[in-house]
Amino acid sequence: MPLRRLACVASLSLAALAVAMSHDAIAQDAGMLGFTAGHAAAEHTREQALDASVSTADLDAWLLRMASGPNQVGAPHDRDNAEWQLQQFKAWGWDAHIETFQVLYPTPISESLELLGPHPYTAKLHEPAVVGDRTSADMPGVLPPYLAYQGDGDVTAPLVYVNFGMPDDYKALARQGVDVRGKIVIARYGGGWRGLKPKLAQQHGAVGCIIYSDPHEDGYYSDDIYPKGPQRPPEGVQRGSVNDIILYSGDPLTPGVGATADAKRLTRETAPTLMKIPAIPISYADALPLLQSLGGPLAEPSFRGALPITYHLGPGPMVHLAVKSDWSLKPLYDVVATMKGSEHPDQWVVRGNHHDGWVFGAEDPLSGQVALMAEAKAIGQLAKTGWKPKRTLVYTSWDGEEPGLLGSTEWAEQHADELQKKAVVYINSDNIDRGFLRVEGSHELQRLSNEIAGDVKDPETGVTLLARQRARALVEGQNPTGARADEIRKEAKAAASGGDLPIGALGSGSDYTPFLQHLGIASLNVGFGGEAPSGGEYHSAYDTYDHYTRFDDPGMKYSAALARTVGRFVLRYADADAAPVDVNGFAETVGGYVDELHKLADHAREQTVSREKAIKAGAYTLAADPMRPMGAPELEAAVPPVAFAPLDQAAARLKASAAHFQQAYSADAVAALPTARRAELEKVLQSADQALMDPAGLPGRPWYQNMIYAPGMETGYGVKTVPGVREAIEGRRWAEADHFAEITARSINAYSDRLDKAAALLTR
Amino acid sequence: MPLRRLACVASLSLAALAVAMSHDAIAQDAGMLGFTAGHAAAEHTREQALDASVSTADLDAWLLRMASGPNQVGAPHDRDNAEWQLQQFKAWGWDAHIETFQVLYPTPISESLELLGPHPYTAKLHEPAVVGDRTSADMPGVLPPYLAYQGDGDVTAPLVYVNFGMPDDYKALARQGVDVRGKIVIARYGGGWRGLKPKLAQQHGAVGCIIYSDPHEDGYYSDDIYPKGPQRPPEGVQRGSVNDIILYSGDPLTPGVGATADAKRLTRETAPTLMKIPAIPISYADALPLLQSLGGPLAEPSFRGALPITYHLGPGPMVHLAVKSDWSLKPLYDVVATMKGSEHPDQWVVRGNHHDGWVFGAEDPLSGQVALMAEAKAIGQLAKTGWKPKRTLVYTSWDGEEPGLLGSTEWAEQHADELQKKAVVYINSDNIDRGFLRVEGSHELQRLSNEIAGDVKDPETGVTLLARQRARALVEGQNPTGARADEIRKEAKAAASGGDLPIGALGSGSDYTPFLQHLGIASLNVGFGGEAPSGGEYHSAYDTYDHYTRFDDPGMKYSAALARTVGRFVLRYADADAAPVDVNGFAETVGGYVDELHKLADHAREQTVSREKAIKAGAYTLAADPMRPMGAPELEAAVPPVAFAPLDQAAARLKASAAHFQQAYSADAVAALPTARRAELEKVLQSADQALMDPAGLPGRPWYQNMIYAPGMETGYGVKTVPGVREAIEGRRWAEADHFAEITARSINAYSDRLDKAAALLTR
Repeated sequence: MPLRRLACVASLSLAALAVAMSHDAIAQDAGMLGFTAGHAAAEHTREQALDASVSTADLDAWLLRMASGPNQVGAPHDRDNAEWQLQQFKAWGWDAHIETFQVLYPTPISESLELLGPHPYTAKLHEPAVVGDRTSADMPGVLPPYLAYQGDGDVTAPLVYVNFGMPDDYKALARQGVDVRGKIVIARYGGGWRGLKPKLAQQHGAVGCIIYSDPHEDGYYSDDIYPKGPQRPPEGVQRGSVNDIILYSGDPLTPGVGATADAKRLTRETAPTLMKIPAIPISYADALPLLQSLGGPLAEPSFRGALPITYHLGPGPMVHLAVKSDWSLKPLYDVVATMKGSEHPDQWVVRGNHHDGWVFGAEDPLSGQVALMAEAKAIGQLAKTGWKPKRTLVYTSWDGEEPGLLGSTEWAEQHADELQKKAVVYINSDNIDRGFLRVEGSHELQRLSNEIAGDVKDPETGVTLLARQRARALVEGQNPTGARADEIRKEAKAAASGGDLPIGALGSGSDYTPFLQHLGIASLNVGFGGEAPSGGEYHSAYDTYDHYTRFDDPGMKYSAALARTVGRFVLRYADADAAPVDVNGFAETVGGYVDELHKLADHAREQTVSREKAIKAGAYTLAADPMRPMGAPELEAAVPPVAFAPLDQAAARLKASAAHFQQAYSADAVAALPTARRAELEKVLQSADQALMDPAGLPGRPWYQNMIYAPGMETGYGVKTVPGVREAIEGRRWAEADHFAEITARSINAYSDRLDKAAALLTR
Repeated sequence: MPLRRLACVASLSLAALAVAMSHDAIAQDAGMLGFTAGHAAAEHTREQALDASVSTADLDAWLLRMASGPNQVGAPHDRDNAEWQLQQFKAWGWDAHIETFQVLYPTPISESLELLGPHPYTAKLHEPAVVGDRTSADMPGVLPPYLAYQGDGDVTAPLVYVNFGMPDDYKALARQGVDVRGKIVIARYGGGWRGLKPKLAQQHGAVGCIIYSDPHEDGYYSDDIYPKGPQRPPEGVQRGSVNDIILYSGDPLTPGVGATADAKRLTRETAPTLMKIPAIPISYADALPLLQSLGGPLAEPSFRGALPITYHLGPGPMVHLAVKSDWSLKPLYDVVATMKGSEHPDQWVVRGNHHDGWVFGAEDPLSGQVALMAEAKAIGQLAKTGWKPKRTLVYTSWDGEEPGLLGSTEWAEQHADELQKKAVVYINSDNIDRGFLRVEGSHELQRLSNEIAGDVKDPETGVTLLARQRARALVEGQNPTGARADEIRKEAKAAASGGDLPIGALGSGSDYTPFLQHLGIASLNVGFGGEAPSGGEYHSAYDTYDHYTRFDDPGMKYSAALARTVGRFVLRYADADAAPVDVNGFAETVGGYVDELHKLADHAREQTVSREKAIKAGAYTLAADPMRPMGAPELEAAVPPVAFAPLDQAAARLKASAAHFQQAYSADAVAALPTARRAELEKVLQSADQALMDPAGLPGRPWYQNMIYAPGMETGYGVKTVPGVREAIEGRRWAEADHFAEITARSINAYSDRLDKAAALLTR
């Protein structure tokens, strides 16, 4: 609904707003993407049935059941959950089975961490039980906090604090003369993906890596701590994987192929995604004595957390770190449930969430998993009324996401050919909390995402999800500052004009990666969150049913909203007369990315000149406090012009091709096509995103082949769009930037070719 | 020295840079402002004698002597310091005397602060002795921490946390439904002047006010705490005055007139600058249990400090606060030393620093005071060689600055007529630390300030003060963000182009206020600081000789640099052939201020429209977390066009008049004038700044008459330039903005009239 209409209802109550913003008001405006007018009404009725089917009592009971024991890979309760889910799917009328893989998954045998020196301290490395939480800790089968795929070892070395342990942090350390070679580093969580911390530490010569949760990012700074509030208590630890999924996701030993029992495997020594140094995650209670022991330079403001100490860089006293793991193969249990399409059985709508957690995993991943089950149950009920989806539905419950998207990746690799032929979309969810809808993914789905967000009600305010998103965009857009300011302004502009709110791009961190970035299947990730600060249970033994239902989503309302939202995505895709895409959204987004790349190069060029002047004038030395010497940054070569022309042309052509196609494309137009031509059109559209793949992949990581979306080499989960060019510019590799401008242009042109072909099929 | 030259010395050492940037290189370039070529050489020789005279041994001995006992107003050691200084001035050949005033100055009789409720706590309100600090505490005569001119009282009420206690904080509290009426508020230091905290608290209906030093602004967050490092230890307290000097500075009972024994006085009840509610300053050790006791809404990120707690707004348990003071009059001892001018005895160069502190006052104010004495001694030595200043020098050592600029204001008020006729400049200093030169003041002195900064060497790097300032500007200008970004960009641009670095504008907080803002005398404040974080001793019993010489300025090098710098200002002014002003700097600065005002109004206009849209759309309510309700900001009336035309025209005319004058003005031109015409010119120039005064003053504070520079009504010490217009825009008082655009234009035009008159005297 455009803002102008909202403006006249300022004095209305929330309930009145809810009415003003209801589904009906919107459906009358715009029709339903991909549906003829005649079919839209039936779809609308099915979606109302979906809404009615989703039961918070179910969600609550399922969450309680699935989070009742530790469910990491290899845990008995993990397998038990898979088998129980299998039975559920079957009971709801799905054709379901469990597919197993054998993957490398190390579990801790022993861990120790001691501060030596004048004030010795032995880290507890243990999360004690919390009053009022039934499963919080000390249950049989709960593993101690660990970092999966760290390198094992027994080292004793001086300690250095490296802030977030990201590339800029090492540059700052070097300018202050702090060298981590031969040291054990301690990094706080945040600033980038966990797995980069030991990787960069070992690249810089460190012999061990400690990662802790600073209360500034994750603890009392943000809200009251558990059990009083939702935040991480002093002893809480964030477990996690440091498997280098930036190179490839899935089993470290079987890149590119399914980890079946007889698959050809790398050895642990040759697997490039495994860390070489021992690493351990600790709590802020354990970190405090370590950080307090450090001398050396004062940490600059961006290095300081919220512990009640003066942060120093070190080096400090000697620290002894020892980690030993069981490196045997463990089984994965992927649950796969299918409902065959009546008209297009070879067009698959794939939906997934994972079921493995780090301990009990109530929030991560089961809050999303139970929503997926609610969808499957509702769709099963629909099917029992005689309805069948036109396209085939494939509901998946992945195992082993936490250690590195193992279950989804192995399955996607195992079925790669079939998926590339048949999958039309992959829709993912993962952990969610109360708050705002967040959709990220392939931008031809931006229109659909906005449409559906306008059809589902926010459970706490009664207005649509879209209305709340627009409200937030309007408020945040009042005076944006900081790194996200441009993005916020863009959203606020869209909200104020009534245009589609932009959806985000996908990096990594959940199971969409093998589909989107390895196979080129259009993908979405759908979630909720961003309300009151939460997340304090993340990857700890306090991620429990009790914590979740007290703080993250009391009453399971947002889990239900997720089922209603993603259920709509699935049902729209299942029954649309024409695939519900709008490629104008993709073309505009790509155009925006290319603009960003120009600015990035221009900024680098200006900054290089300006910084060189300052360096050559000795300004850095003179500006520094002589009692706290700080070296100048390194001189960098001048930035040449980047050969953007092919990319500029491809982006412009994409806009034209998209507009041309979209003008011809509608449900009515598709429905009117002769059958063969329609089949041809659908084949072209189904595989359109695969045009964005380059078979040689990205530099140093051929597994990642999507030329538009990739996780960043130096951000981890964080996305880099047009990654070949963007990362080359950021890394100042100018020949590579030119090369990938051409490669990416070729991919975009291939996509435009398909649009042109599709348009021709519609208009000839 | 322009940057281009610096660029070729990148590989040189600091020592080589020092040579490259030495005085001689610069003097050859530019001559000496206000001096004929013939006279510049002699001035240069005198300045070398000044440099040689300044002795760090003297500075150290004087600091030790003056900081050896408590020296607040009324303390025996304060009077003793004044009498000792008097003897020193006399011994150095100055004509010196002590001028006394009788002022209201309350001192604490009793104070208590208790947290009641389930976890009772009695605040210690005491600064214990620190190991290794000879005078740190518990010396006879040390008063407990207090806020001078708070309102006394005995109140018991619930506690509310108000962040910095500034106007925006109260708006944020209101949006969260937190009301301070009938409450005791606790505010952290920072965000604005201390005195605004109890003032705004009482305006909002609070019955008591506690101010504490949060370690985020002032404690372990920034550096190690005393005695390990320089920062405020847990028990350290910032004393201070809450006398409302935004209305008028000086004795609260004698606004506008000298507080002589027989002056007509207001009563305590009728004095508008006195607070009405009790208030007390406390340490972060005492604040911790109070803040920890608070429930109520979570504090938003901008409200959070660095204590290891979750900050809440309250209200919390009851707190009992009782303060009782002795409100008797106390004596002030201003030391005034004069050296009569040989050519222009009725042109006074006034130099001042204060001698009173809160306890021992080593850094504040004695670090500046001993520099002033070094200048006086050096000038006395010059005089003994037969030299006499052409203009009269008046060296002043003020008493009672801390409670509200008492000594300087009473003296300035007592001698107002004579000062307005005779004073050509007032040059102030106050507490300093090692670091960068900082000059603020009347912008016709910007050129002189840059010239002198290029003539004095930074004691730690050996390059000139200006070279270090330029280096810092270049480095900070690489990627500026935050509130100061525009200012930093402006400085970096000046540094890169080799133009004059801008000097800051003066708000309040030291003794220049009565001269600049009440009498219209061109003023400067000169200091050093901004190196490694310090300031942890500020206004506490730990502001001692030991702290100062360990952390703030080991070896008294910067105190010496201050003497060499301000000594040059004084000597240049004393002997210049023509007053060393460059009014182009003033005209450009005023033009910049007027540009800012346009932007301020435009921004307010846009933001009002955008915010109104969001409010009327209900966006604020919808964007808020329903479990943490947050009201919308208040709707504000649309911003009309501001009648800037007179101000625009006046700024443009000022630029033209300044350029015209400056083209004709030089030492040679002045020297060539007939005696009478030269005298007339000097009279015009001497009083030029008084043209900027409007006799009606600023709204609600007629004592402040300078239409260009004033301390902000809502910032306290912080400056508001073109205050009549700026504060009206910020307060959305549009008729007042129009009115003051006209008033200010009239003042600027009167200034331009004087420039035109001066130009005519030079050119006819």
